[in-house]
Amino acid sequence: MPRIVVKFGGTSVADVARIERAADKVVREVKRGNQVAVVVSAMAGVTNQLVEYCHQIAPYQDAQEYDAVVSSGEQVTSGLMALALQKRGVKARSWQGWQVPIRCDNSHGRARIRDIGGEAMKESLSGGEVAVLAGFQGLSKTNRITTLGRGGSDTSAVALAAVLAADRCDIYTDVDGVYTTDPRVVPAARKLPMISYEEMLEMASMGAKVLQVRSVEMAMKRDVPVQVLSSFDDAIGSDMPGTLVTKEGNIMEKEIVSGITCQRNEAKVTLLNVQNKPGVAATVFAPLAAAKVNVDMIVQNVGHDGKTTDITFTVAKTDLQTTLSLLENSTDFECEAVLSNGSLARVSVVGIGMKSHAGVAKTMFETLGRHKINIHVIATSEIKISVLIDDSYAEEAIRALHEAYGLEKSNHDDKNNG
Amino acid sequence: MPRIVVKFGGTSVADVARIERAADKVVREVKRGNQVAVVVSAMAGVTNQLVEYCHQIAPYQDAQEYDAVVSSGEQVTSGLMALALQKRGVKARSWQGWQVPIRCDNSHGRARIRDIGGEAMKESLSGGEVAVLAGFQGLSKTNRITTLGRGGSDTSAVALAAVLAADRCDIYTDVDGVYTTDPRVVPAARKLPMISYEEMLEMASMGAKVLQVRSVEMAMKRDVPVQVLSSFDDAIGSDMPGTLVTKEGNIMEKEIVSGITCQRNEAKVTLLNVQNKPGVAATVFAPLAAAKVNVDMIVQNVGHDGKTTDITFTVAKTDLQTTLSLLENSTDFECEAVLSNGSLARVSVVGIGMKSHAGVAKTMFETLGRHKINIHVIATSEIKISVLIDDSYAEEAIRALHEAYGLEKSNHDDKNNG
Repeated sequence: MPRIVVKFGGTSVADVARIERAADKVVREVKRGNQVAVVVSAMAGVTNQLVEYCHQIAPYQDAQEYDAVVSSGEQVTSGLMALALQKRGVKARSWQGWQVPIRCDNSHGRARIRDIGGEAMKESLSGGEVAVLAGFQGLSKTNRITTLGRGGSDTSAVALAAVLAADRCDIYTDVDGVYTTDPRVVPAARKLPMISYEEMLEMASMGAKVLQVRSVEMAMKRDVPVQVLSSFDDAIGSDMPGTLVTKEGNIMEKEIVSGITCQRNEAKVTLLNVQNKPGVAATVFAPLAAAKVNVDMIVQNVGHDGKTTDITFTVAKTDLQTTLSLLENSTDFECEAVLSNGSLARVSVVGIGMKSHAGVAKTMFETLGRHKINIHVIATSEIKISVLIDDSYAEEAIRALHEAYGLEKSNHDDKNNG
Repeated sequence: MPRIVVKFGGTSVADVARIERAADKVVREVKRGNQVAVVVSAMAGVTNQLVEYCHQIAPYQDAQEYDAVVSSGEQVTSGLMALALQKRGVKARSWQGWQVPIRCDNSHGRARIRDIGGEAMKESLSGGEVAVLAGFQGLSKTNRITTLGRGGSDTSAVALAAVLAADRCDIYTDVDGVYTTDPRVVPAARKLPMISYEEMLEMASMGAKVLQVRSVEMAMKRDVPVQVLSSFDDAIGSDMPGTLVTKEGNIMEKEIVSGITCQRNEAKVTLLNVQNKPGVAATVFAPLAAAKVNVDMIVQNVGHDGKTTDITFTVAKTDLQTTLSLLENSTDFECEAVLSNGSLARVSVVGIGMKSHAGVAKTMFETLGRHKINIHVIATSEIKISVLIDDSYAEEAIRALHEAYGLEKSNHDDKNNG
């Protein structure tokens, strides 16, 4: 009997009416002969309210108590979903993280799942009962409630799918799939029918807020096919088009370029003529790591004489002031000057077919050149080319690249959509 | 080291500001050298909202899921209270019912506590940590969340106090103690410094909504001294006046009459000339019990001939129509007529000293007679005399009886209060 995991995000269970609608989708999967486990987020706004209560008491809290408070929203939704399924004549029961149990480490607020004791749940599923898991929650080694970080219910769903050896993990959210780029910037952006884990990971890390990054990593590691679907149309299961995130081998016709992503509000820092000696990079970045400043692109060019080097890297704009004062106060290295630019955007071209196709980078640079968009920094990986440009050119760059790689909807697509 | 349990009801933790104020009270108990376990209700209104969600989905629900939903409010408060205590420099942690565990039977929605595994909590208390228990919750035999019924946090607190062998259980609520009668009816009503469990039980069952009846039963059974205090003044501990509910033996100077209670919206049903044969009462009341109609006072008078009997009993006014139709459709007994009156009030005089004092009943009947208040039914127990009167005379009766038994504040009290 096919077994699937279906996950509903906060906007998909925002109120009782939406929960009922989500329950209808689950019932249809059950009627199709699937064993179904459902994973639910808190009703939209609830988690924010709970976080707000904690902050009203103290800006910095014991993460164990924070978790006890904020995990309660998912508990409510899980019970309500079970009730809505029972009303529809479907056997169902709620499961809290500690009941499964979803065993986590003790990193409260951003716990990692160690293992899942799914035996009782498997038995319940085999008995024809729908399992409704409160997402986001886990159980620490010391029997306390943990949470998996914001967006953690995606990870709950993928982890559960892995443990249950589910055939598919459907993620219902407020978008109906993964697009070639942000449709608000490029109205002709096309929904991708399939995308590889690696591409999804690049796109999720760089601003395509469809899935929590960790959930994609876990899906890739455990080979869980994840389908992104909209909870606001009647799309259900594999016969209606969402986006299937799967392993590269399953994708017959690979796109050379799958999408264009953009991360705005980036800042660039350049250290001019740093004394070049072994370990200098470590001394530069150590204080930033200690201050939890996330450093992204890093470029280093050794000068002609080999004695000095320029180091350029990017951080989030919100971290720029912290970064500059840390560097200026550091006595661990010497450099001629610290330059910065706080109004940049990183635009990336992502595509698994890039591995076997030359000319992707050339097209990118030519396109940006034609639009007179200056490139500050270039960084590449096997399936991605990223450039740092002035933020004011970001949307123009996205539109130009989207067109240059021919990512628009085809005429065929247009007819279907019209 | 003295150990106490402190319980805060919903209005005492209604919002973050109130939680902070409650935390102040706990800190003061800690500074006095007590080991403290705190029991909290949900923030006022939260449980009602959760119940409302359940009812929106289905009027009758699986009580297991209902419990999963409605128990979450206490979880939130327990975490917030722990945070508020930590902010004040006091070590504290929250405990959910399943963590302690509070082991219950499987009667979801009105579970009874079987036993409490308080070892881990005792260890935590001995280590100087305040334990904050989410009230109202328990764990069923099948590892599901149960709840103890509305007002169940009182029972959580008393049960915890029993298991921890606490020296005292302080219940902070929105009244500052137990009064001789409802102060809204008799402004001169006096707060009782002490009352016996038996008296409190009679008063709680009959409309003095200070403590959940079950919590008083448990306190009596396990001999837990319970102190009722207001969370809206600075009364803390035993040096400020609340009402101490304790065993009769601890009360040196017993009041002959401790209080006057009144239950309004009572209905009386009289079956005239029922065929008097063994077991007739059972046949009359069986269908009512099956329909969960709670029958209260029952009076039976056998007629002169011994062949027929009149049976009179009371039910809540809201149950009257159900009761009448059940009786009229019953073929299990015969009677001449079914009479009813749906506008009655039960007024009771409660006092443990009554056992050893004659004349209490006489004073009651004389007082009501002087006010020309007709008595429909009389029922008595060792420490209580109840009469059923027309509802329109209820307040007059309470005032007259309060005065007749000399329950007003003394001049001494007035001076203290003024």
